[in-house]
Amino acid sequence: MARVVVDVMLKPEILDPQGQAILGALGRLGHSDVASVRQGKHFEIEVAGVLDEAALDRVREVARSLLSNPVIEDFEVRAAAH
Amino acid sequence: MARVVVDVMLKPEILDPQGQAILGALGRLGHSDVASVRQGKHFEIEVAGVLDEAALDRVREVARSLLSNPVIEDFEVRAAAH
Repeated sequence: MARVVVDVMLKPEILDPQGQAILGALGRLGHSDVASVRQGKHFEIEVAGVLDEAALDRVREVARSLLSNPVIEDFEVRAAAH
Repeated sequence: MARVVVDVMLKPEILDPQGQAILGALGRLGHSDVASVRQGKHFEIEVAGVLDEAALDRVREVARSLLSNPVIEDFEVRAAAH
């Protein structure tokens, strides 16, 4: 069993109202050293078998087709650290 | 300007209906090699100044107080890779 992490973020040119709201709250709470916040999704996926390049490609296909909206989001797939 | 990543996940003992829904959809789409999916939140934060241990501690405080619900969620703070 291998663990893979997929992070999905809005593309840099797309406005992120959730991140903006958090940034505003941080300012009001005195965390003025925080300059920007962007929020995305984090998935931890377990796949059967060995984590070879073919398995990573299957996870990339899942990320593209089901976990992200490629019009407005980018994703990143990597083997989990542990 | 330093970039920090915060990942927030439901604790392992808390049910994750979003992840379960994705796992069900993957099964119907033929991705039967995926054994488990858990969904969390991913934050990319820019802080002013140098990313020393004190700055990371401030981000941990933000993660604890604002980005996560410590009753049901765990979080992980790390310097961004780039």
